[in-house]
Order: sequence, then C-alpha cells, then structure tokens
Amino acid sequence: MKTAAALVIGNELLSGKIADQNLVVLARTLRAAGVLLRRANTILDELDVIAAEVRVLASTHDWLFTSGGVGPTHDDVTIEGVARAFDVPVVTSPILADLLRSHYGERLTEGHLLMARIPEGARLVSGESLVWPVVVMQNVWVLPGVPEIFQAKQPFIRAELTGGTPFVSFAVLTTLDEGQLKPMLDRVVDEHRDVAIGSYPRWSDPEYRTRLTFDGILEDQVRAARDAFAQSLPAGTIVRLE
Amino acid sequence: MKTAAALVIGNELLSGKIADQNLVVLARTLRAAGVLLRRANTILDELDVIAAEVRVLASTHDWLFTSGGVGPTHDDVTIEGVARAFDVPVVTSPILADLLRSHYGERLTEGHLLMARIPEGARLVSGESLVWPVVVMQNVWVLPGVPEIFQAKQPFIRAELTGGTPFVSFAVLTTLDEGQLKPMLDRVVDEHRDVAIGSYPRWSDPEYRTRLTFDGILEDQVRAARDAFAQSLPAGTIVRLE
Repeated sequence: MKTAAALVIGNELLSGKIADQNLVVLARTLRAAGVLLRRANTILDELDVIAAEVRVLASTHDWLFTSGGVGPTHDDVTIEGVARAFDVPVVTSPILADLLRSHYGERLTEGHLLMARIPEGARLVSGESLVWPVVVMQNVWVLPGVPEIFQAKQPFIRAELTGGTPFVSFAVLTTLDEGQLKPMLDRVVDEHRDVAIGSYPRWSDPEYRTRLTFDGILEDQVRAARDAFAQSLPAGTIVRLE
Repeated sequence: MKTAAALVIGNELLSGKIADQNLVVLARTLRAAGVLLRRANTILDELDVIAAEVRVLASTHDWLFTSGGVGPTHDDVTIEGVARAFDVPVVTSPILADLLRSHYGERLTEGHLLMARIPEGARLVSGESLVWPVVVMQNVWVLPGVPEIFQAKQPFIRAELTGGTPFVSFAVLTTLDEGQLKPMLDRVVDEHRDVAIGSYPRWSDPEYRTRLTFDGILEDQVRAARDAFAQSLPAGTIVRLE
C-alpha cells in the first residue's frame, strides 16, 4: 500500500488564530485513493524547518502534501523550502507568469509575479476546471493553505493517485462504555488482525456511549469484523450499525 | 522564551473521520502563558511511533502536550508510549484506581481499571474543579483526545505555566491583495524584526482581501509595527484595525 505524509505550514495554526481545515479534506481524498496517510506535521513559517521536514517526509513516504505558505509575501517560504530540500534553485515558471499577466492585466505588480516561482524541475498539474495549476516537485504536492482552494485541488490529486484500493469503513454504536465492552472488543481485535479497529467514547451524548470503527481494504473482511463484534454484544446494547 | 510541542495521536484524524479540535485550544492556552508552540505532529495509534516522537519532542522543547489515546482499549497506547520514551514501566496509580472505584462502584470492570495506568514516576495534577487529574511525566502532559475533556484541562496547564509574558496580537484588514501591499509590508517586516508579521489572503470575502497580523511579547513594539504598516497604506484601503 502506498503511504503519504502531510506538512501543514503556518504560524496562524500554532498561535491559535485558526484551526486547520485542510487535513481532514486531504485525509478523505487519500482514503478514497487507497493511500495510507501516516502523519501530518504542523510547523511554523520557517524556511530551514520546512526544508528539513520536506527532505525527511518526502524520502520516507510515497507522497508528501504540503499545505500553506505559497503566496507572494515574506512569510510564504514553502516553494523555497521545497526547492532547498531537493537542492535545486527557485525559478520563474513562464506558464504561471503568463497566467498571472492575463489575470491581473495592467494591475500586475512585481509582488504578483512572485507567485510564478517554482522549484526548478517541478511540473504543473492542471485540468479543464482548474485555472491555476498545482505545483508538484517529484513526489511533493505543494498546495495552498486557503481552505476553498485546497479543496478545489483535491480532484486533481485523486485523478493522479490511481491504482489503489479505496478504504472501507464500518461502525457499531453502542450504549456500553469502553471498560464494559473491552473483553468483547479484544477478542475481535485478536481475531481480525487485518482490520484496523478503533474505539471512540462520546462525552455526554444521549444516543450512544462508544463508537467502534472497522477500517480496511477488503470489504468482506471489514464487514465480518464489524459483525463479529456486534454479535458479541449483549442484547439491547447496540444503537446502530453503520 | 519557553517552547512547546504537541503530539496529536489518533487514527481517526488521519483517516478523515474527524477534524482535530484540540490544537487550537492548546495553542491559545500557550499564547496566554507566553510559551511558543513550535510544532504539532499528528500520528497514528502506534506504540513505537509514539515512543519515538515523545523521546524527540520532549527532549527538544520545554514542554510536550499529547492529545488522545488514553482510554482502556487496545488502541489507547499513549501511556505506554510515554513510559517507553522515558524507559520506565507502566504502573497502576492507587489514587486513580480509587477514583475509578468510587466512580463506578459495583459496575467497575478490569477494563475500567486500565485507566489507572501511568508511567512510573508520573505526577498527577489536579484542582478543586477537576475530578480526574492530568498525568504529567516530567515535562510531558498527557491529555485526553475528547475535546470537552481536553478543554476542561486547560486551566490546569495555565496554572502551572507561570512566569511567561503573554503574546499580544494586532491586525490590519485591507482591501489590497498581497501582490499590491507587498512593498509596504516588506518595509515594515525589515524595520520591525522583533514582531512576527503574517499575511492571510481571504477568498471571496466582500469585506476585505488581506488580513495582516502582528504578534509579539512587547505590546508597544507590536502596536508600533501595526501602526507603521497601516500608515503606509494608500488612503481608503484600510477596512479595520484590530
């Protein structure tokens, strides 16, 4: 199975100004593509840290997706960080420069043109519905932090990451708490090693006390684990199967 | 200035089931305490990865805060990971076991009692309003992933992290885009090196196009940077100062 990492870049996320909205979006794209997202590191707008993280994460995962730091201002250092990680210079893409010229026309400034910078050797991924391409340097996708734009790029990731088997996920919602259901859960975990099983307590939810999730690649296997667990619960303690 | 890292643990965050709600809460607590949160690593429920991350992050930051993986089920391996990072065994805390006994009474199971496990040598931080203490192993705070409980623990972090100067944050909202305001911004960035300045474009917001933020420890310094930038903007392009 292919693996991926995310590198989420931005002081605003670590200073409590905003909560990240992009990781869950990327995670769902990768689940549908059958790619295992193994970690997401959130860091500050620091060139040397970005470069070091990209170097490590890109070399230890099949794909790396960065989020944030791609505008024209002083705190946008992701492109330079990715270039440094691959030991290449930052160059101006003629294609992106043309796009900027036709978008801004007479209002174009030198500042705007900085958005045409790419690591040397990067490719541009675009499609009919995408005005602004995605910059991809080897196995590193450089995505913008603005949630609406980050979201808009997802179909292009999905279109390139073919060949994987999508994950499937089932669930059991129960009125038992984790301490009560643990013996039954442990048995199913032991007997269904190929299924990733998670247990999530709810806090003051009137409907159910714990959600058990069953995830994997082979639908029959995942469903069998879910059903085995459900059948092991005492009568009347299951709220719902999903 | 003291530094901190966060370790956010849970398959559910990397499989797209839910978006994390805890990082922004912790970030705000640390800002108010004058502690610089330098990174947040989100990882899977994997014992060896947790142990390795705790070892590195706890030794390179003044504080480490973990979120998630502290219940009694098979996927709750944070306590064991922290213990392994410090090369100590997991032991049962008599204080926590007593709390569980009095809470559950006759309903107490062996599963429930697993929530009394702590790394040997960990201390318990509690207070009048806190029924269940926080486990703190040296400089590592072990916090639960359930957002309501994570939130409830924040005052106890704040009470222990004394001595820092809270960060202050000001902002300018403008109708200029980043390409237009860059020359003025670069000048202020150059002349106010002790102030962290951020630039955040809005996407299809009718009110303003860019938010510039000014963060630091010394209020006068931060305000001066904000005001210098505001004064450098053309008339009629400022929407609001914050």
